[in-house]
Amino acid sequence: MNKQLVYLFNEGDANMRSTLGGKGANLAEMTKLGLPVPQGFVVSTNACIDYYAQDEKLSKQLVDEVKNNMFKLEEITNKTFDSTINPLLVSVRSGARASMPGMMDTILNLGLNDEVAKAMALDNERLAYDSYRRLIQMFANVVKGIDKKHFDLDIETLLSKYHVESDHDFSPDQLMELVDLHKDTYLREVGHAFPQEPEGQLLEAIEAVFQSWNNARAIYYRRMNGIPDDWGTAVTIQEMVFGNRNDNCATGVAFSRNPATGEDKLYGEFLFNAQGEDVVAGTHTPLPMDQLKTAMPSQYQEFVDFSKMLEKHYHDMQDMEFTIDDGKLFILQTRSGKRTAQAAVKIANDMVAEGVISKADAINSIDLRIVDGLLHPQFDIAALQKVDPIAKGLPASPGAASGVIALSAAKAVEYHKDNKKVILVRAETSPEDIEGMHISQGILTSRGGMTSHAAVVARGMGKSCIVGSNDLNIKDDVMIVNGKEYYEGDQISIDGGTGFIYEGKLDTQSVTISNDFNHLLEWADDIAELKVYANADSAEDIQTALDFGAQGVGLVRTEHMFFEADRIRSVREMILATNDLQREHALQKILPIQRSDFEKIFRVLKDKSVTIRYLDPPLHEFMPTSTQDIEELATVMDISVAEIRDVIRSLHEFNPMMGHRGCRLAITYPEIALMQTQALIEAAINVTKELDGVTLQPEIMIPLVGDVREFNYLASKIKKLANQLIEEFGINVNYTVGTMIELPRACILAKDIALEADFLSFGTNDLTQMTYGFSRDDAASFLDSYYDVGIYDKDPFATLDTKGVGQLIKLAITDARSVKPDIKIGVCGEHGGDPDSIAFFKQIGMNYVSCSPYRVPIARLALAQE
Amino acid sequence: MNKQLVYLFNEGDANMRSTLGGKGANLAEMTKLGLPVPQGFVVSTNACIDYYAQDEKLSKQLVDEVKNNMFKLEEITNKTFDSTINPLLVSVRSGARASMPGMMDTILNLGLNDEVAKAMALDNERLAYDSYRRLIQMFANVVKGIDKKHFDLDIETLLSKYHVESDHDFSPDQLMELVDLHKDTYLREVGHAFPQEPEGQLLEAIEAVFQSWNNARAIYYRRMNGIPDDWGTAVTIQEMVFGNRNDNCATGVAFSRNPATGEDKLYGEFLFNAQGEDVVAGTHTPLPMDQLKTAMPSQYQEFVDFSKMLEKHYHDMQDMEFTIDDGKLFILQTRSGKRTAQAAVKIANDMVAEGVISKADAINSIDLRIVDGLLHPQFDIAALQKVDPIAKGLPASPGAASGVIALSAAKAVEYHKDNKKVILVRAETSPEDIEGMHISQGILTSRGGMTSHAAVVARGMGKSCIVGSNDLNIKDDVMIVNGKEYYEGDQISIDGGTGFIYEGKLDTQSVTISNDFNHLLEWADDIAELKVYANADSAEDIQTALDFGAQGVGLVRTEHMFFEADRIRSVREMILATNDLQREHALQKILPIQRSDFEKIFRVLKDKSVTIRYLDPPLHEFMPTSTQDIEELATVMDISVAEIRDVIRSLHEFNPMMGHRGCRLAITYPEIALMQTQALIEAAINVTKELDGVTLQPEIMIPLVGDVREFNYLASKIKKLANQLIEEFGINVNYTVGTMIELPRACILAKDIALEADFLSFGTNDLTQMTYGFSRDDAASFLDSYYDVGIYDKDPFATLDTKGVGQLIKLAITDARSVKPDIKIGVCGEHGGDPDSIAFFKQIGMNYVSCSPYRVPIARLALAQE
Repeated sequence: MNKQLVYLFNEGDANMRSTLGGKGANLAEMTKLGLPVPQGFVVSTNACIDYYAQDEKLSKQLVDEVKNNMFKLEEITNKTFDSTINPLLVSVRSGARASMPGMMDTILNLGLNDEVAKAMALDNERLAYDSYRRLIQMFANVVKGIDKKHFDLDIETLLSKYHVESDHDFSPDQLMELVDLHKDTYLREVGHAFPQEPEGQLLEAIEAVFQSWNNARAIYYRRMNGIPDDWGTAVTIQEMVFGNRNDNCATGVAFSRNPATGEDKLYGEFLFNAQGEDVVAGTHTPLPMDQLKTAMPSQYQEFVDFSKMLEKHYHDMQDMEFTIDDGKLFILQTRSGKRTAQAAVKIANDMVAEGVISKADAINSIDLRIVDGLLHPQFDIAALQKVDPIAKGLPASPGAASGVIALSAAKAVEYHKDNKKVILVRAETSPEDIEGMHISQGILTSRGGMTSHAAVVARGMGKSCIVGSNDLNIKDDVMIVNGKEYYEGDQISIDGGTGFIYEGKLDTQSVTISNDFNHLLEWADDIAELKVYANADSAEDIQTALDFGAQGVGLVRTEHMFFEADRIRSVREMILATNDLQREHALQKILPIQRSDFEKIFRVLKDKSVTIRYLDPPLHEFMPTSTQDIEELATVMDISVAEIRDVIRSLHEFNPMMGHRGCRLAITYPEIALMQTQALIEAAINVTKELDGVTLQPEIMIPLVGDVREFNYLASKIKKLANQLIEEFGINVNYTVGTMIELPRACILAKDIALEADFLSFGTNDLTQMTYGFSRDDAASFLDSYYDVGIYDKDPFATLDTKGVGQLIKLAITDARSVKPDIKIGVCGEHGGDPDSIAFFKQIGMNYVSCSPYRVPIARLALAQE
Repeated sequence: MNKQLVYLFNEGDANMRSTLGGKGANLAEMTKLGLPVPQGFVVSTNACIDYYAQDEKLSKQLVDEVKNNMFKLEEITNKTFDSTINPLLVSVRSGARASMPGMMDTILNLGLNDEVAKAMALDNERLAYDSYRRLIQMFANVVKGIDKKHFDLDIETLLSKYHVESDHDFSPDQLMELVDLHKDTYLREVGHAFPQEPEGQLLEAIEAVFQSWNNARAIYYRRMNGIPDDWGTAVTIQEMVFGNRNDNCATGVAFSRNPATGEDKLYGEFLFNAQGEDVVAGTHTPLPMDQLKTAMPSQYQEFVDFSKMLEKHYHDMQDMEFTIDDGKLFILQTRSGKRTAQAAVKIANDMVAEGVISKADAINSIDLRIVDGLLHPQFDIAALQKVDPIAKGLPASPGAASGVIALSAAKAVEYHKDNKKVILVRAETSPEDIEGMHISQGILTSRGGMTSHAAVVARGMGKSCIVGSNDLNIKDDVMIVNGKEYYEGDQISIDGGTGFIYEGKLDTQSVTISNDFNHLLEWADDIAELKVYANADSAEDIQTALDFGAQGVGLVRTEHMFFEADRIRSVREMILATNDLQREHALQKILPIQRSDFEKIFRVLKDKSVTIRYLDPPLHEFMPTSTQDIEELATVMDISVAEIRDVIRSLHEFNPMMGHRGCRLAITYPEIALMQTQALIEAAINVTKELDGVTLQPEIMIPLVGDVREFNYLASKIKKLANQLIEEFGINVNYTVGTMIELPRACILAKDIALEADFLSFGTNDLTQMTYGFSRDDAASFLDSYYDVGIYDKDPFATLDTKGVGQLIKLAITDARSVKPDIKIGVCGEHGGDPDSIAFFKQIGMNYVSCSPYRVPIARLALAQE
């Protein structure tokens, strides 16, 4: 038996969203609730899937079911489709499971033709021809793809011919003339006459909706929003009611609460004596809802009551379309309303207070993709609307920032001393730029990808950052964008959330975490089963993370400490050492600085867990690159430039990502790991003495382990020294030693590793790179082609690839827990702050996620969402 | 109950090798066979394992069992240990499961002390003191680590004092004096007197054997030979018989056949009136076995009979130690004899002919690690012994080669035209050097690893190659090695099998595959269940592979065709193209050349399967690097140097291994894959016409697939064009389209991929790199440290990592076969020619292995070995 392809509204409900689409399911639900909904039927998503499976042809079954349901609709409405007596007109709308702008929207008044219009005109001439001319224009536009402007020209012609101000003011005769003009235009543009058979109109419209599922805009939207291509769309066919019948009519759209502020008051726009399209088209200026309250108080109150009822029923703020037809209110559509982050937070709080929704519902109501706006400065919307971006790059770290251009870190520092706000603009940043980055408002580079030095450091600092903007040509003393030159001191603005770069200074809105938002976060913590830690490298950043509610720190990258100006020289001395003794001598200079860093970190975190990763990047990252810096270093170190160049050359790697880094460094130079251990344990001992009674929780993390023997080799050395120091000082330190799982081999051998390690932390950045076999930076050159041809839907570095990388992680966790059920397992890659990835991590037995401080609130909410 | 730690010879047999060690098990087996073996007992490997588990202490159980077995041995021999009446002396030897040079070897005459010696002297004064002085020296050396030279000095002293020629000629009194001198030397060097308690001597000797399991040489040997560290060693304690009792004595070592040539005749060396150590020490010149035949014909014949008996019993050529004590022959040890590749092949054939072993045994008897010597030219051994290498590099491709130095490909070609043999010496090679490489005898580079361009190309050509020799400083006109300068035209020799570089010209032995070897290969093919294909890129190399018995070609790397001089220009034109049209224009120039390449390949292979991999390397590999070459290209292409540099810059990748390569190229530029398809299908059509009745078997391989959508995208385009061409020409081509599995993600998603692909070929080079997260080239900088500290035992690029990478492959095969049981699956990475890796591939359901032509015979044998 074939499955049913078409459903009357009264055959469905809100649960049938995947079959009826969002629009259809809500209309069915409202029908069930007894709301005044014009009746109709829904061509299901299955029909759309069949259509594509059957060489894009409407099946006989579908055509039969459509006809059959039209008969039923005629019975329900007591009107007749394709009849001059009491004619039934319908609207046709697309409606996928998820709301999808870019697809075909709406055709109104379908069913009209010359004969039916003439018959309707006997009753209401203006309505008949106004509706008919609208049908011709919409049908031509959405079914045949003809630009509206051809029909607008007809209107212009008559407006000037009759000196009329607006098409609302046309007389019935003029509207009849407009119909004739439109029919001519249709014939000319489409190539055949406007179809006079309502059934043919309907089937063409249904097919047009199906086709719109695969237009470029729809495909693009799906990719951006992770909507599967195989869902298909439904088509809703609904009896027309008329907002343009007479002056006792109106039509509009309204939100049950203010979508910008969250205020609990019906908010929207409407027009008297018009059809829905007029409200959104911008051709007529719609009126605020308060004027409806004045003009039609009872209908307004009825609408408020319905909107409250729908809110309670759906447990969410509603976005509704309505029409008042000769004084009678109809609801044409309802759905959850989009809102700003601020509004979302206020509405969630208010609705909990009103008892409309539970705390869990409140958390679920927050769209995490927009919450970033609450955590970083944003450009003032009014300011933004006035300007166009001059260029675009990769949005590496969110937040809006304005300042003067500094083309070097030194210049940035100079401006900062003069109390100027700075945007640091570089081809790419290097460790030497750290100080300049720190004092800048934002960072902009012309090269590098989402894991470039600039991007990683900026995210850690929570600083606005755009990287890899090919539009920029950055030279020593000028930045050229599309031929225009910008010099140091010139104002620019960047939006790290969108990647747009603007000329001049744009006003920003500052960040305050509202009480409402804090409530949500606290409720979320009660619900969440996993903890949220932060990736943060300094006491300052850790404090920010704690302020955002982090329960600990899942990743301290100690190399970021190595880059700072006061120690990079000793680090380089260590690298340039030609024997163990020289190397240890250099390390002894770094030791007190690193110990003091750790002390600061422990003081902030107290008894909260902190995972400290030992030195990870390849050593060449610490070496200078410019001739000038190399010469400087040679002078300071009293060795020849040639010698330094030799070392740099010897450190060169073909594929640094796959080279001498991570634990491999400490295996060749154990003295580095031992220095770090000494610094860490001594710092812990000192702070334990200071903070009497507090038990610190340091976790030592050995990076890039691919074999348990790597781990054992280093862990035994580390533990030996640590225990020796603890014994020596007579103060216990409750440290553990674990590892980062970031290589496919570590996943496969997780059982071996779990037996030895105290904890496992998945580094999903590297794991994604190795599993896919492409590096994030280099992949930029071909991933766009992949999106274009539909090979990948989304960036696997932004959202975890659950089918591939995720399966490796799952396998590893299962194996690890099979030998050590209680082992602490988390994730500290960038996916730790991504809501979709977090949804997966929740399912596979992790204990925590760790993300950058500014993502902590998002992670807290994501962990509590269903 | 504790497990037994010590076994009498008559309690064991050859199957107890893992408990008794090889030596002990063979002595037990010979005892069982009734051979004249001096009796004894074996301290098992379990005792050694316990020793290390118990803080390196001999357990009470062990000491008790040793004493107990000594009592039993006393009963068997009717002699008494630590007694002046009929004293029992023993030898103590190490004996692991596998033969392991580097460990403690032998102590003879243990049980002697002043008293026992004096008692023995009553019977045979010379024997008593000769044995005693030997014990002191050996004990000091192998148990206490004292250099032999200190004792040799004592001997020198007496030789000159008494004007005696050799220690064999000492009188008993002089030997007694030597004992006293040795005892003084022992006291001085060891710090205490030579131990007088035989039981103490024995326990110390046992512990010394245990300790020798973990000395540096033993560890190194285990790592080189893949012997697990946790096997432990056994200790064999055996009654002494004396080759030094009188002139009716002899001792020696002999092979049951000639280990150099394979000739079926007892072959070895012996000494009259001596102990075993004299034969190997080199202090006395041993005699050939023929002299024993003359002097002691009956004992000689008895020995020949025993050796034949042991050969039959063990189904293998034997390496035996023997002693004739006062006319009575004893066998002290037997084991399979090491032999040259030539001998191995002859012996295997002869033994099959003699009915001693089966064909399967014959194949199993071949040590595949030395078979390379049969397939590549080798230096004459006599020539080699006269010289020391001047430098060492990575042995990238086996074979010996001599020639004059050419420092550029152009110079190499020039020398070649003058009929000179050339060694091409470069810092590193690039595609432009192909021709120069082709006409050279061997290739030597100072940079790069085992998968560098030079290494890969040389292996494919079967050409001797050493890469990454840090000892060389190669400049434009000179090669400097340890300060010495070598110029173009100077003779050098390189051994690509060992990595050694020699000054001057060394004689080489040429290659001929003997009939004997061919028999083995044919027998192997009958036994093997998997096929052997070759990785070969040209018709010429493919012919070589077929000559070596390849059953098809598992990998044609089409990019090697792109590099050749007559087409590289068009390839660069394609890369420099700024639009699709220009790119297609360039591709059209490459098409006929590529088609002709394919035609040649098809003509050679006929109906044998050939897997052709589409363009794989990143495009920048095809671009020139030197300023001169760039300028030349600019002139030829009539564009500016700046433009070319811009393109080269835009092609730069941070991690080219993880960049825009493999199928990613064809996804961004489908026209490349389409050109290759056109060339391939048209070539197949042309050759099908030519070779009437032959059905070609081309397999199109899409590289570096990580998602089935990548495969589908390209496969559908390829099939569409292929089928169109087939239809157009009216000639069928039996092509398939499959993929290379070389990314961890492809392994995890193998089920999806197998559903769509016609075959899967594992590229284990890249898969190993991605799974471990290190590139072969870059790993060189730290893998040595890994071997040093015992983290890795062997190079995962030489022998497959079965625990990690192997598990991914196994998972992928299981998943793939679960949806498509008959899908053709093979391996085409370098592991395809490695015997240990092949042993694994046999277990996990592969259909074939593919390796370089010169590895084909080894793979054929490996597949048939158990």
